[in-house]
Amino acid sequence: MTIKDARTPASAQSAAQETPTEAGKSIGWHKAYVEGSRPDLRVPVRQVHLTNGRSVTLYDTSGPYTDPLVDTDVRRGLPPLRENWIIARGDTEEYAGRPVRPEDDGIKHTAPRGGLRNLDAVFPGRPRQPRRGRGGAPVTQLAYARRGEITPEMEYVAVRENVSPEVVREEIAAGRAVLPANVNHPEIEPMIIGKRFLVKVNANIGNSAVTSSIEEEVEKMTWATRWGADTVMDLSTGRNIHTTREWVLRNSPVPIGTVPLYQALEKVDGKAEELTWEIYKDTVIEQAEQGVDYMTVHAGVRLPFVPLTANRKTGIVSRGGSIMAAWCLAHHKESFLYEHFEELCEILAAYDVTYSLGDGLRPGSIADANDEAQFAELRTLGELNTIAKRFHVQTMIEGPGHVPMHKIKENIDLQQEICDEAPFYTLGPLTTDIAPAYDHITSGIGAAMIAWWGTAMLCYVTPKEHLGLPDRDDVKTGVITYKIAAHAADLAKGHPGAQEWDDALSDARFEFRWEDQFNLALDPDTARAFHDETLPAEPAKTAHFCSMCGPKFCSMKISQDIRREHGGTRGEIEAGMAQKSKEFAEAGNRVYLPIAD
Amino acid sequence: MTIKDARTPASAQSAAQETPTEAGKSIGWHKAYVEGSRPDLRVPVRQVHLTNGRSVTLYDTSGPYTDPLVDTDVRRGLPPLRENWIIARGDTEEYAGRPVRPEDDGIKHTAPRGGLRNLDAVFPGRPRQPRRGRGGAPVTQLAYARRGEITPEMEYVAVRENVSPEVVREEIAAGRAVLPANVNHPEIEPMIIGKRFLVKVNANIGNSAVTSSIEEEVEKMTWATRWGADTVMDLSTGRNIHTTREWVLRNSPVPIGTVPLYQALEKVDGKAEELTWEIYKDTVIEQAEQGVDYMTVHAGVRLPFVPLTANRKTGIVSRGGSIMAAWCLAHHKESFLYEHFEELCEILAAYDVTYSLGDGLRPGSIADANDEAQFAELRTLGELNTIAKRFHVQTMIEGPGHVPMHKIKENIDLQQEICDEAPFYTLGPLTTDIAPAYDHITSGIGAAMIAWWGTAMLCYVTPKEHLGLPDRDDVKTGVITYKIAAHAADLAKGHPGAQEWDDALSDARFEFRWEDQFNLALDPDTARAFHDETLPAEPAKTAHFCSMCGPKFCSMKISQDIRREHGGTRGEIEAGMAQKSKEFAEAGNRVYLPIAD
Repeated sequence: MTIKDARTPASAQSAAQETPTEAGKSIGWHKAYVEGSRPDLRVPVRQVHLTNGRSVTLYDTSGPYTDPLVDTDVRRGLPPLRENWIIARGDTEEYAGRPVRPEDDGIKHTAPRGGLRNLDAVFPGRPRQPRRGRGGAPVTQLAYARRGEITPEMEYVAVRENVSPEVVREEIAAGRAVLPANVNHPEIEPMIIGKRFLVKVNANIGNSAVTSSIEEEVEKMTWATRWGADTVMDLSTGRNIHTTREWVLRNSPVPIGTVPLYQALEKVDGKAEELTWEIYKDTVIEQAEQGVDYMTVHAGVRLPFVPLTANRKTGIVSRGGSIMAAWCLAHHKESFLYEHFEELCEILAAYDVTYSLGDGLRPGSIADANDEAQFAELRTLGELNTIAKRFHVQTMIEGPGHVPMHKIKENIDLQQEICDEAPFYTLGPLTTDIAPAYDHITSGIGAAMIAWWGTAMLCYVTPKEHLGLPDRDDVKTGVITYKIAAHAADLAKGHPGAQEWDDALSDARFEFRWEDQFNLALDPDTARAFHDETLPAEPAKTAHFCSMCGPKFCSMKISQDIRREHGGTRGEIEAGMAQKSKEFAEAGNRVYLPIAD
Repeated sequence: MTIKDARTPASAQSAAQETPTEAGKSIGWHKAYVEGSRPDLRVPVRQVHLTNGRSVTLYDTSGPYTDPLVDTDVRRGLPPLRENWIIARGDTEEYAGRPVRPEDDGIKHTAPRGGLRNLDAVFPGRPRQPRRGRGGAPVTQLAYARRGEITPEMEYVAVRENVSPEVVREEIAAGRAVLPANVNHPEIEPMIIGKRFLVKVNANIGNSAVTSSIEEEVEKMTWATRWGADTVMDLSTGRNIHTTREWVLRNSPVPIGTVPLYQALEKVDGKAEELTWEIYKDTVIEQAEQGVDYMTVHAGVRLPFVPLTANRKTGIVSRGGSIMAAWCLAHHKESFLYEHFEELCEILAAYDVTYSLGDGLRPGSIADANDEAQFAELRTLGELNTIAKRFHVQTMIEGPGHVPMHKIKENIDLQQEICDEAPFYTLGPLTTDIAPAYDHITSGIGAAMIAWWGTAMLCYVTPKEHLGLPDRDDVKTGVITYKIAAHAADLAKGHPGAQEWDDALSDARFEFRWEDQFNLALDPDTARAFHDETLPAEPAKTAHFCSMCGPKFCSMKISQDIRREHGGTRGEIEAGMAQKSKEFAEAGNRVYLPIAD
């Protein structure tokens, strides 16, 4: 495989230097592409150019937005990268699709106040018809993998993950990994979620009845992927749900997840008891036609489990879970999601929408962790996983929540056992309840641990969790915190190549290559800004000390001096020092006790 | 034991309401005291008053500064709480003490430029003479504990930790816990560090050759303890080291730690090879007379270990470690700290200075974790711990550093084995190198884990680690992050009472008691500010929803509605719902597969 620059040869140097960061400073990296077996298979990477002439290649989620040669326009949407791959398979067909209705944007019940529809907001890009499996046939990556086919999507993620395409196919075929890729979302750069691959991070966005606009949500999506979000969930609950999602999907280079129940509830004006399977199904089709790549379905919240939550400290904290519980109790009937699960599988298979089986009964406090309600639902998710696989629907399983450290491992171990190693997708878990405003940290701790033990994707938590809606800064903080947790887990799992990044940064640190440290950092802008706060002058960027110790005390400098004074390569130094130490030891210069061993 | 308010009965209500937070708002907690067996033994607590009429009592590190009835003045210093206890033991004597010299403030070599001494900066409080064990006798809490004595200090921490004084005595006597309390630092509120007790957090402050002033350092100390720092290390390396430390000590309600080597090096103008045992010893006595409670001593950096660092990615990253390595190599001699360790023990025992045996060869990168250099030093620290105990010197052991998650447990297990369960005191560890500007988080993950597994105290890391000196905001962020890690570990260890805090906050969350959520939060100011950003209006403080979901979707509200609609107490609800579920099950209404188990 060869890496191709996203630059023409002539402008190569200047492009790298001119790409501006937010702060308007030049940066030492550029977008490049690794080519696969065909010219239309180009996998984006971030190439960091070090001042010692080397470069480091990093996984890149930021999409075409960081490629200076691609002219992006949110009103046009991203180019449909996978369109030809999907068409070439010949197993899908375009069709008229479900007409968009005012209530899709939550207008039905409030038309007198707000007018029929905000037409200006409708996505203005090229007209498109939805696509689905011909005759309702499953067109999922799971179905292809089981047939032994390596799709371009699989090869793409193989290049991205630096593994063989056959490993990708095997993991998908076994249900241990998912490659969320709705046939109506050709804009995505394929990615994979599974414990044999790099740990992934999801960022949630979404307006609510209380605040925020379409523009903000699209901006949050591109912002989140810029900092490393591997997927984005649009959890909008207020007005303009349909239209917001259209803008997000057409502009998203990463898979988009949703919770269709939220929109279905809007369609019945927020009255859970008025929900029906028909309204829900209609919403799922609406969203599948738009291109949603994975959907959270709370089909594990069964009627008999609801009483198990009565003695809880915090009851049911999942929105979807509480809506379904309310419905079950209002009608005193089994969940319509559970009862219609096979029908739902047929729909999802025809678009390749991946299940994210929701944990509607997840614990919302330390006190409720690992209780019977939670594990009863998990066992049901195990059943549903088996059914989904029969329909060739890719499936992952959602996990908690609030869990103290000593109870975390039981969660992943049980899930892997009950759900046949289907990818686990957890929210944190938060390891204590006492730090509102810092729940990115309380949960980042749990996230790193559970990912080390096998969780495939982590749903981020922002500092605003429990308190308010995340703004741009919160989204960034949440993503960075979770990239740390994911990478710490990659290291602990011994993921091949993960440590190269750490090593490159530590080398730069040891050799006082400050610019390289910044450029290799998860967040170059903040690293640079923090350094400059104390030592702003340009010469400090090459100084062989920093503000923490000052010039006299720098331990790294002393370490280097030790090496220099004792000359030669590392090997020679070691030999020389070893010789001296030998003489020292031979002289019997031992003090106090001998060293153990 | 009774809890006494820090308020007179007449002003009780108003005092609680008027105590201002930084933002100038009234808060729902006040300082109170739990009385021990004698009137001068009053242990401070933070009492949080809930809107449901209950209150929650929390551990309090903030000192007299948060007591509206105590008139504090940094120019006078704090009242000498322990003075009578120390005098009453009758085993110490006052003496003239070592005269303060210009070079103690780093002036010797730069006098022509800076004048002899900044006299205005000298601490103006009451004159005091240093105190030490009569005839050099050990006056340590370890010596008393071994003799079976329960000192007032031990009783004080027993009240603080809610355990029996005998447990405290036993743990100290066994060397599994330390109670750092220099006889020359009577101002402290005693605290204990050991794995059977609450996990503690240390915050570092200190000026450097490059920046910051005395006022800033005193301010950082009180600020750090306000947010929960249990001890503070003054790591100053620039000018006015002696004077800064005097101000800090006289105003500190928590034990103060130092690294005497830093000041010793200043006295030889930063030339490591000019260091001598005599200069070092003189510095230790200078600091012991001032009242430093624990000292980091890098006596484990032995000459034969230095070559073991030659092949490392980042060499020696500990300042103290690199200074000692440079000295060893320059003279090609064994470390003077190692050679004079017994003499050092005699000095420390006479003041009850606690050893913090430094890990000068700790790894500074993921690549260097758990290597031979690190563990060779740890084995030496085990030897030194044995010697220190012979001299009745309280001792804790410092630990890394940069360690990937899967290599953390080996650190605590080995340390506990080699060092006879002496308290482990770790810096993080950082679980990845790739996130400068977020190393409070990379290390908070490792800190929580290693504390769960037995580390007794965590040295905080701020966002500025590797980049610059922490400012006020960084100190707060570092402390809060580490309080989270410590509390998450207390929960995971099943520390009695730890979960009550989480439960109180979760109850408040479930019942929409927003003010209680804020007041119970580790950082009430930020939690309140984040909430108000989205929903600033005062009615929102009692609203039964928040900005995340809006009024329609609130899962907690639905949970409550479920309870309400189904009436009665929790038990009755459960019984009622169970009955309904039973009917449901009896009707054979099973869908798809039976639930496993």
